[in-house]
Amino acid sequence: MIPDSRKIFSSIFEPRSIAFIGASNNLYKWGFNILHNIVTAGFKGKIYPINPHGGSWYGMKVYQNLAQIQDNIDLAIIVVKKELVKDTLVKCALKKIPAAIIITAGFSETGNEGSQLEQEVLEIARKNSMRIVGPNTMGIFSAWPSPLQATMASGHKIPGHVAIIAQSGNLGSSISYRLTKRNIGISRLISSGNEADLKTADYLELLENDPKTDIICLYVEGVRDGRRFFELAKRISPRKPMVLLKGGRSEIGARAAMSHTGAMAGNNDVFNAMCRQTGIITVDSMDEMVDVCGMLISQPRPLGNRVGIITMGGGWGVIATDACASNGLVLPRLKESTIRMLDKVLPPYWSRANPVDLVAPNRITVITDAVSILIENEDIDAILALGIGYATLRAMVWRFSTVIPKEDSEIPSKQMYEGEMHLMELLVGQIKKLERPIIPVIDIMAFDRAEYHDLLKYLDSHGIMAYPSPEKAIYALAKVFEYTRTTRVSSARDKGKNTIKTGLQAQEGT
Amino acid sequence: MIPDSRKIFSSIFEPRSIAFIGASNNLYKWGFNILHNIVTAGFKGKIYPINPHGGSWYGMKVYQNLAQIQDNIDLAIIVVKKELVKDTLVKCALKKIPAAIIITAGFSETGNEGSQLEQEVLEIARKNSMRIVGPNTMGIFSAWPSPLQATMASGHKIPGHVAIIAQSGNLGSSISYRLTKRNIGISRLISSGNEADLKTADYLELLENDPKTDIICLYVEGVRDGRRFFELAKRISPRKPMVLLKGGRSEIGARAAMSHTGAMAGNNDVFNAMCRQTGIITVDSMDEMVDVCGMLISQPRPLGNRVGIITMGGGWGVIATDACASNGLVLPRLKESTIRMLDKVLPPYWSRANPVDLVAPNRITVITDAVSILIENEDIDAILALGIGYATLRAMVWRFSTVIPKEDSEIPSKQMYEGEMHLMELLVGQIKKLERPIIPVIDIMAFDRAEYHDLLKYLDSHGIMAYPSPEKAIYALAKVFEYTRTTRVSSARDKGKNTIKTGLQAQEGT
Repeated sequence: MIPDSRKIFSSIFEPRSIAFIGASNNLYKWGFNILHNIVTAGFKGKIYPINPHGGSWYGMKVYQNLAQIQDNIDLAIIVVKKELVKDTLVKCALKKIPAAIIITAGFSETGNEGSQLEQEVLEIARKNSMRIVGPNTMGIFSAWPSPLQATMASGHKIPGHVAIIAQSGNLGSSISYRLTKRNIGISRLISSGNEADLKTADYLELLENDPKTDIICLYVEGVRDGRRFFELAKRISPRKPMVLLKGGRSEIGARAAMSHTGAMAGNNDVFNAMCRQTGIITVDSMDEMVDVCGMLISQPRPLGNRVGIITMGGGWGVIATDACASNGLVLPRLKESTIRMLDKVLPPYWSRANPVDLVAPNRITVITDAVSILIENEDIDAILALGIGYATLRAMVWRFSTVIPKEDSEIPSKQMYEGEMHLMELLVGQIKKLERPIIPVIDIMAFDRAEYHDLLKYLDSHGIMAYPSPEKAIYALAKVFEYTRTTRVSSARDKGKNTIKTGLQAQEGT
Repeated sequence: MIPDSRKIFSSIFEPRSIAFIGASNNLYKWGFNILHNIVTAGFKGKIYPINPHGGSWYGMKVYQNLAQIQDNIDLAIIVVKKELVKDTLVKCALKKIPAAIIITAGFSETGNEGSQLEQEVLEIARKNSMRIVGPNTMGIFSAWPSPLQATMASGHKIPGHVAIIAQSGNLGSSISYRLTKRNIGISRLISSGNEADLKTADYLELLENDPKTDIICLYVEGVRDGRRFFELAKRISPRKPMVLLKGGRSEIGARAAMSHTGAMAGNNDVFNAMCRQTGIITVDSMDEMVDVCGMLISQPRPLGNRVGIITMGGGWGVIATDACASNGLVLPRLKESTIRMLDKVLPPYWSRANPVDLVAPNRITVITDAVSILIENEDIDAILALGIGYATLRAMVWRFSTVIPKEDSEIPSKQMYEGEMHLMELLVGQIKKLERPIIPVIDIMAFDRAEYHDLLKYLDSHGIMAYPSPEKAIYALAKVFEYTRTTRVSSARDKGKNTIKTGLQAQEGT
């Protein structure tokens, strides 16, 4: 552990005051955009824009240099020309600023000359005990204690408990966009840039003791000290699941990575094996990363790989079964005694097999009755509920119909809508009581309309993420099961409670 | 070919008059909802609701029986109780209705008794030369000549040129939702139900000569006459690409399919091999199906597997390269002469390799210059353009800023926005001129905000589908390349024009 890690952490992620060096009024410059992102995202600390010309930046005083500032500065954000970076750092050192984010590009990523300059910058930092993020970084975002959006990427982020460390600013932003779309909150986002000083492993170590971070997403092209990285992973991953996307998995991709971050990718099979051993969850795309995060953050851990499927249509059951088979999950055959119990609550035409195909249940509670019977009698580890959302869709179609008068549509529309909301309520209650993953698959999420928004909002408000297709839910469930088995995390049930805070609820202040 | 296929096609997909038997004023019944879907979707033919109680259905006269109707009826839609289906069919025969869609369930899917009933229904149809869709079908949708939404699934569909044949109504609807969300138009949607009479192969044959259908999507759990199906596929697929998702690929999935549609899945390896040989494109999920459809419908066919990548950020290039490698696509190394040509137009810090990493181009045309140079000098078969959309995002952030006054944001916002729209225009022009796939990957589509809608709308209006991630674009490109190689479809370039109508434009009447 870095001795002063608490101080570095504070300086970068919880600064009370920042100096923004290279502030600009020119909208086309990063010296404008990053400052604009910081201000509009609502940073509550003090911001000191700096530019030798002084003047003002949309109502804020612009200081001509650091020396003019009376206050202590916790963090410098540097957006000046590359020729001025060294001199700027020296001034930061004089001001005793403990850390700097160097956005400026044109260093080791551009060749020998740039590498030389980067080395000189690093030496200044080392000599003055300053720590550096970057250079050539897109910046960082920190949600707590107040939003610090010191990044090139615009757009609202939800405060939450998933951190992102990315060896590509674009991938980092893109992952954050994808999490935001699925309503998953972010604690910290780090674009590690050229990693002249602080490296992926250092950020990992900083996040280890961050009480706001429960899950760590990584985009990695290569780690410089593999041994240290995997030792950290082994220590951290059982408590804070790590979800990793590797760039440069193929030989030709590794060559592209080499030209991008200079990362020596090393042998990919070895890297994968190390990830498996240390409990790192590997994924093959950003979308898969988000699906896995949602499962980690919103559901209890599956204690085994036995899945029960409850479906409102046969086809969904079939493709879900295929997906279970190809992801190493098992669908137990139902015992005769379970079938007899289900017979009592299900409509006469039910499938009498797993998947449990209800076709069109005549009342909502048959679904939750089936869930309870399956879990209690077959010792099922997780349930998928397929075919939810269509009642809500129909309710909306009635409500906005040009054919049915309002007086005819009002009551049925309300009943249909409330029925489905009640089902959500029951399912959420069962997840909490039974402490098994019960995963709603809301197929009409695929259809980009407002119809399902209330459903999702309700689930979000209870920390549950719905999936738009069975395949995505099953992939994520299988990954989390594998993780749970590897890291032998004490299960939610054993501990008597779910230890993972639901990031989806973070925006409500839990 | 079925001798009267033209007549059957007309009757089912282009009826001038339909009898809706089992019309209901009860919102909870399919006898209400399907009729409501037909009326609200805007069917232009005549609709005759039938119910023994007579009366009216939201302003339409309800006939007590078929005999009361003077008009000829092209299509019967039957939603009565299963006990009444036989009698209803006899009456349809008396009225000389050539085809009926039997929505009613409770037939062979429920066991022996139901199978017996289904057989009797089939015999009545055969004796009277009537053709049957279903029973136990969710219905059909036909976009042309006017929308006939005779299906349980609600929600708007875009008229276009992709047909769906599904051995699961839910999967069929779900695929149609996914196509609609990506703005791909649908020509026909068939839920084939129990396939008592018309089977998947029959629908395939009906669509073979449908001038409104260019691409055929299939969800198949099993085909009863494999030989006929694959002979048809071999004949049809070179002209009308077929994209197939197989339910029951795993042994356990096949068991679930057996219990769903009674399909004998057969050996999956043999099925796959037959698909490969006959040019059927197989996919593993509905989302992949939509990605492939978009590529087929909106881009010229790739003549080879050599890909050029142009990216506005290194990380995207790396993951795109990995995806090419794992999908069998090749990224040629650039010749020295090409590098020298690119040196003249690109910023000094460009990557000098494929992926061509521009970092942040100082003007839009460097992107399209690079596209042309790559295609002309390296004989590249397809180009991916990564990192598009961020300028539009920034323009929107400025426009709605609470910090920048309108007079400061207006011009830069407009310039930024117009710059990116101009790039889209240039790319669309290049696709048409160079006749190679040039695929825009708009990463911020992943971020569910209005910022990118104008971009997508512009692309849609020119028949081009954007992809939200490089992986999806590359997967689809590789599938289409494989298809093109197998079916040896004369390329767009050889023929001098792209023979595939762009379904994305269909709503504009092209």
